[in-house]
Amino acid sequence: MKQKIAVLGTGSWGLALGNTLVENGHDVTLWGRETDQVEELQKHHTNKAYLPDIVFPKELKATTDMAEAIKGADAVLFVVPTKAIREVAIRFRKLCQNQPVIIHASKGFEQETHLRISEILAQEIPENMRRDIVVLSGPSHAEEVAVKDITTITAASKNLEWAEYVQQLFMNDYFRVYTNDDVIGVETGAALKNIIALGAGAIHGLGLGDNAKAGIMTRGLAEITRLGVAMGADPLTFIGLSGFGDLVVTCTSIHSRNWRAGDMLGKGYSVDDILATMGMVVEGISTTKSAYELAEELGVEMPITEAIYQVVYGGKKAEEVIQDMMLRDKKSEKEF
Amino acid sequence: MKQKIAVLGTGSWGLALGNTLVENGHDVTLWGRETDQVEELQKHHTNKAYLPDIVFPKELKATTDMAEAIKGADAVLFVVPTKAIREVAIRFRKLCQNQPVIIHASKGFEQETHLRISEILAQEIPENMRRDIVVLSGPSHAEEVAVKDITTITAASKNLEWAEYVQQLFMNDYFRVYTNDDVIGVETGAALKNIIALGAGAIHGLGLGDNAKAGIMTRGLAEITRLGVAMGADPLTFIGLSGFGDLVVTCTSIHSRNWRAGDMLGKGYSVDDILATMGMVVEGISTTKSAYELAEELGVEMPITEAIYQVVYGGKKAEEVIQDMMLRDKKSEKEF
Repeated sequence: MKQKIAVLGTGSWGLALGNTLVENGHDVTLWGRETDQVEELQKHHTNKAYLPDIVFPKELKATTDMAEAIKGADAVLFVVPTKAIREVAIRFRKLCQNQPVIIHASKGFEQETHLRISEILAQEIPENMRRDIVVLSGPSHAEEVAVKDITTITAASKNLEWAEYVQQLFMNDYFRVYTNDDVIGVETGAALKNIIALGAGAIHGLGLGDNAKAGIMTRGLAEITRLGVAMGADPLTFIGLSGFGDLVVTCTSIHSRNWRAGDMLGKGYSVDDILATMGMVVEGISTTKSAYELAEELGVEMPITEAIYQVVYGGKKAEEVIQDMMLRDKKSEKEF
Repeated sequence: MKQKIAVLGTGSWGLALGNTLVENGHDVTLWGRETDQVEELQKHHTNKAYLPDIVFPKELKATTDMAEAIKGADAVLFVVPTKAIREVAIRFRKLCQNQPVIIHASKGFEQETHLRISEILAQEIPENMRRDIVVLSGPSHAEEVAVKDITTITAASKNLEWAEYVQQLFMNDYFRVYTNDDVIGVETGAALKNIIALGAGAIHGLGLGDNAKAGIMTRGLAEITRLGVAMGADPLTFIGLSGFGDLVVTCTSIHSRNWRAGDMLGKGYSVDDILATMGMVVEGISTTKSAYELAEELGVEMPITEAIYQVVYGGKKAEEVIQDMMLRDKKSEKEF
C-alpha cells in the first residue's frame, strides 16, 4: 500500500533511499537544511555534489520546511550524521502531529553519552509521537543503490512486525531487505566496524599482506562482537549484513575514508596530518575513543581497539603496537 | 620442548608450515612422492616451482621414504590434497610404529562420501596408532607465511589440550594460533567457502558492485553456517578465522583460483572452457556438488549454492539465477 514518507537528510544515502521508495510507488518528501541543495533537487532533480550522474524522478520532492515534510507521514526516515541526530529529533518532536513509524539509517555512538542512535531517538521522541523505531543498516554504497545495483540490507526492531513493515517499504528486485530483531547488535556492529577499517588500512600502510588483513578483520569482528554482547547484543548478529557485510565493504574499498586514514597511520603520518589531508571527519577516530571508554567501563578485552587508541591518542607508532598484539598470551578463538 | 615432526606433503603450504616449525626449533622432516622436489629441497633447500624466492634452512629435511619421515615422530602433519588424504592415511597406517598426534591442514570433503578430512583420517588410522586429530585452518597464503608476514590461524580439536599442543608447536611472533573446540565448524567452513568465492567472482564478472559482493559473501556465510550447523557445528565458529577470515582472503584476492573461475562464469564462459583455461582443479566446483547434495540430504536451504550448482551443472546463465535469488520470499536474517 502506498505510504507517505518523510526522509530527514539530503545526503547521498538519504537521496538513494528516497529514490528507492519512490521507485516502489510511495509518496516521498526529503527535508534538508541546505537551501541550495533542496532547490537543486526541486528544480533540476539532481544533486551534483553527492551523486553527480543521477537524475532523480520528479516524484522525489524536497523541502526546507520540516513541518511540511512530516505532515501526515506514515513513516519518517532519519538519515543525518550521528552528531546531528539529537538536534533533528528535537526539531521533529516540536512539529510532529501524528504518530509515524521512525526509521533511521545513521551509524555511530553519541560522543559524550556513548548512546546508540535509537536510544537518542527514544529519549527525544515521546512514545505517543511515534510507533516503533526501526534501524536500517548494511553494506550499501549510496552510489550503487542510486543506479539500482544489487544491494542487501537489514531492517531491525525488537518488534518483528515493524521490521517487516520496513522490509515491505523498501524491498524490490535490486534492493533486498532482511529482518532482524537485534537492534543493539545491528547498531553496535555498524558503528564499531569503522575502528577495524582503520586497522585494516594500517596493515596495508605497514606493507603487510592479505593474511594479516584477514586476521585483523576477523579478530576485529571478534572483539566488536565481545563489546556488543556486553552491551546486550546477540553474537550471531555480527555474522550478518550490518556486521560482517558492512565490515567487508569498509575494509576492502579504497574509497572508505576510515581505511584511507588507517593506511596513513600505518605509513607513519600523525593524526593531525591525516585530518588536515582528508579535510573531513573520519568517524572511526571518534568511535575508537567511545569504544575504548565503553570497553573499560564494561571490562571487555579489545586489543585491536586499544592498539589503535594508543596510536591515535597516545602517540605510539603502528609497528610497535602490532608487535605487542602478536606477542599477547595464547588465546582461544571464541571468548564472547 | 623440541618435538620430532613429520610433514606429509611438499606443496607450498607443507613447505611454509614445515619452515615455521623449524624456525620454532623443532626437528622436521617432509615426506613427498616427487623425487625431483625432494632432491631439490635436500640439495638446494629450495622449491622453485612453488615458492621460487625462498631458501629454506638446512634443518628442513626431506625424504621420499615415509617410514623414515614418521619414525619416532611426536606429531604428523597431513598437508596433501583432499583426494589424496585417504590413500596417504592408509600408507601411514601400514608404516606407523608409535602413536603420534595427527594434525591436518587440508580443506574439502571427500567427493564420493562427503566425509570431512578428520573423519577420513579417523576411519583409516586406528586409535592405537595415534593420539588426537587436530585441524589447522585459517586465512593463510603460504607465500606470506614463508616470508614471515603476520598470519593468524585456528587449531581445532574436541580435546582442547591437544589444540593447545598444536598452538604451542606453531606459535611465534609472526604466526599467531588460536584454539577452537569445534572441528566440524572449522572443517566445513574451510571447505564451503570456495563455493562463495565462485559466487563473489561471478558478481564481479557480471559487472556488479561492492554492495552485491558484500551481500553474496554475507548471505553465503549465512548459508554455509546453516549447513554446518545441520552437520553439527557451532554457528559462532563461522565468525572466526576458518570461516569469515578465510572467506575474506578467498573472495577478495584475484589470486584465488575459485574467484577467477567465478569471474569467468559471470562473464558467460562455460565450465569446460574455464577448466581448460585454468588448466588445474577448481576445488569450489566439486565442493558445490557435495554441498548441493548434502543440503538436499539434510533439508537445508542454500539458495546461493543452488544457484551456482544450476550454472555449473545445469547450464543456466549467471544473470538468470541472480534475478531468481533477488526475487525470493522475504526473509529474516538469522535462520540457522
